[in-house]
Amino acid sequence: MDSYTLPYTFSQRAQQLTSSTIREILKVTERPEIISFAGGLPAPDGFPVDVINQAYDTVLANSGRSALQYGPTEGYAPLRAWVAEDLKRVGASVDADEVLIVSGSQQALDMLGKLFIDPGSKVLVEAPSYLGAIQSFSLFEPSYQAVPTDDGGLIPAGLTNDVAAGARFIYVLPNFQNPTGLTLSLERRQALVERCAALQVPIIEDDPYGDLRYAGTAQPGLLGLGRAVGATVIRLGSFSKVLAPGLRLGYIVAPRPIISKLVQIKQATDLHTATLTQMAVYETVKTGFLTEHLPKVRDIYKAQCGYMLDAMDEHFPATVSWTRPEGGMFIWVTLPSHIDGTELLARAIARNVAFVPGAPFFAGAHPQTNTLRLSFVTVPEARIREGIAILGALIKES
Amino acid sequence: MDSYTLPYTFSQRAQQLTSSTIREILKVTERPEIISFAGGLPAPDGFPVDVINQAYDTVLANSGRSALQYGPTEGYAPLRAWVAEDLKRVGASVDADEVLIVSGSQQALDMLGKLFIDPGSKVLVEAPSYLGAIQSFSLFEPSYQAVPTDDGGLIPAGLTNDVAAGARFIYVLPNFQNPTGLTLSLERRQALVERCAALQVPIIEDDPYGDLRYAGTAQPGLLGLGRAVGATVIRLGSFSKVLAPGLRLGYIVAPRPIISKLVQIKQATDLHTATLTQMAVYETVKTGFLTEHLPKVRDIYKAQCGYMLDAMDEHFPATVSWTRPEGGMFIWVTLPSHIDGTELLARAIARNVAFVPGAPFFAGAHPQTNTLRLSFVTVPEARIREGIAILGALIKES
Repeated sequence: MDSYTLPYTFSQRAQQLTSSTIREILKVTERPEIISFAGGLPAPDGFPVDVINQAYDTVLANSGRSALQYGPTEGYAPLRAWVAEDLKRVGASVDADEVLIVSGSQQALDMLGKLFIDPGSKVLVEAPSYLGAIQSFSLFEPSYQAVPTDDGGLIPAGLTNDVAAGARFIYVLPNFQNPTGLTLSLERRQALVERCAALQVPIIEDDPYGDLRYAGTAQPGLLGLGRAVGATVIRLGSFSKVLAPGLRLGYIVAPRPIISKLVQIKQATDLHTATLTQMAVYETVKTGFLTEHLPKVRDIYKAQCGYMLDAMDEHFPATVSWTRPEGGMFIWVTLPSHIDGTELLARAIARNVAFVPGAPFFAGAHPQTNTLRLSFVTVPEARIREGIAILGALIKES
Repeated sequence: MDSYTLPYTFSQRAQQLTSSTIREILKVTERPEIISFAGGLPAPDGFPVDVINQAYDTVLANSGRSALQYGPTEGYAPLRAWVAEDLKRVGASVDADEVLIVSGSQQALDMLGKLFIDPGSKVLVEAPSYLGAIQSFSLFEPSYQAVPTDDGGLIPAGLTNDVAAGARFIYVLPNFQNPTGLTLSLERRQALVERCAALQVPIIEDDPYGDLRYAGTAQPGLLGLGRAVGATVIRLGSFSKVLAPGLRLGYIVAPRPIISKLVQIKQATDLHTATLTQMAVYETVKTGFLTEHLPKVRDIYKAQCGYMLDAMDEHFPATVSWTRPEGGMFIWVTLPSHIDGTELLARAIARNVAFVPGAPFFAGAHPQTNTLRLSFVTVPEARIREGIAILGALIKES
């Protein structure tokens, strides 16, 4: 139907939404014969189903009526306090009233878009960066400015006065970045928060994978480092990767004046996050369950990552390079410059293998089309080896 | 702190958010000595705690891993199908793929704001209308145009060509409206959908309370009536009032091209609504549980409403008028024109009684300041009588 004949008019932002070609291609990944390295799904073997079931039962049996009633927009107070206490592990000293509970980190991105972005506002992103964040922010029509990266991740010196001038915020994933799998060194973290403090650019630190470290040494979060030097840091956390994503539970940590605005925004957005979910997750984590649970999850991810790296060492030609993540879910592959990731995907799908091409992860920068993102988390070992062998052969044929 | 010294810049929309005076006043309603008619909370006596607990247990025991995994943005397919089937009760024939599951109706309002509203876009609302909708839409900076109402609710003839010209949509609550408690007659419904079809103005039909009818005769929804005459109707439904609001579960019904855009918006907003919640609610409702459950809820609401109407008949002076709802949660009071609702609230709080003054419910219209909204749902009978007696005395003193 021609848009002029529609009996309704969409907003400018909605008119700009187009169905993504890659999304259409990746719909085939639901077919069982496809070996899919495209997903961002956590390993369901790591979901503590029985513990969560017990927690729901306890909450509904003991506090059913309050668990099923409307709750405060800020979130369930004991869970906010638990998050504040837990952040000591990443070197941050936070009060419970600096924590706002949200319906997954994706909602935090939407709310921060509402808070900070006017049409045309400059927003700084790593090149490449998380696609879901780009999608969220884009609804508020920012102008993206890419901050350069290398094999150590974001380059703080790339944050020049020119690059940073007037930026509403910089969006950073310091641990096992999506899509690259790279982790920022302590030196770069320190340099980043110092530059942002001097430039008065708020930092959005998105850390969904930080607890999934299975190699190397944990680094302090940008929140603690930034507060020490007067930077404004807004930290996003999530229970999706440490417990289960189907719960849709995450949180925002920020200075009180920002939390105060975000509470008003959250109220207009969905009133509050489900009370029952918050109480059940608090019931699950309050006794330190994650301390025993997370090592099991890390072991799964470490093994899965190892299978894929092994297979890549065996099957990928020397003209291809890739990251070796210390945690998280993703490996980033750089192909010879004449190979286009989207074109390779089309050929891979024909051989029943899928991944996400790298180009869409670049906002505000010339996309590196000879890249792709591989997720190793949910595919069984034998299928990983089979799929990587096929990809290797396709690359060699290119 | 002066805004010029803040180390960050909020968006225009966020700068316009101000802490509401009334919200501040109403914070005192959390004190136990306050008799609060201000809330919009459903009666927790009506929450089927045990049935919901059993449903969570069944889902987690039988399908735990899929219940805890990411799910499709559109929603859990069996729940979408259930909603489509259920809508036959309000006279609409709907396919499951015209249903999108959302995290409560409030999220639907946010997503529809994103879909339809550019800064300055004309949006038609009843005067008065639901405050939460006004808050959601306002983040997208529309220009409100009020459609006049009388004691039969919205007046379709008020939708003149001038009033409707260029409007992105009209937002209507046809059953037991929030805040007035009024219900549109069949004649007005028919006239409304016919006018909107002719004017090409989409209708957003918000019906959270439709199943809570305890008097009078059920009327067909605008969705079915509108489709019959070629109007574009987007219907919002919720499990908050028929099951429990703490679950945060609702749905949007719309033509496929609109659902398609809303799915892209929902993906950027929060990926999807919690899988576990959707599966547990489907488990709860799939065997027709609501057919036996809703009469119990209606009985509670009918009795509560009766207590308040009785007390008002006894204690309010003849200079005051009020609505007599056939369902839902609210009674709307019109005071003598010299009494201001906000000023009355201040005096009522001093006597430990609270309500919501009427003025904030008017968008795009001169507010009727001599109005107020009373909720009768969660207050015990004796406290209703006590609180209404105090209000009556305060009004007589004015």
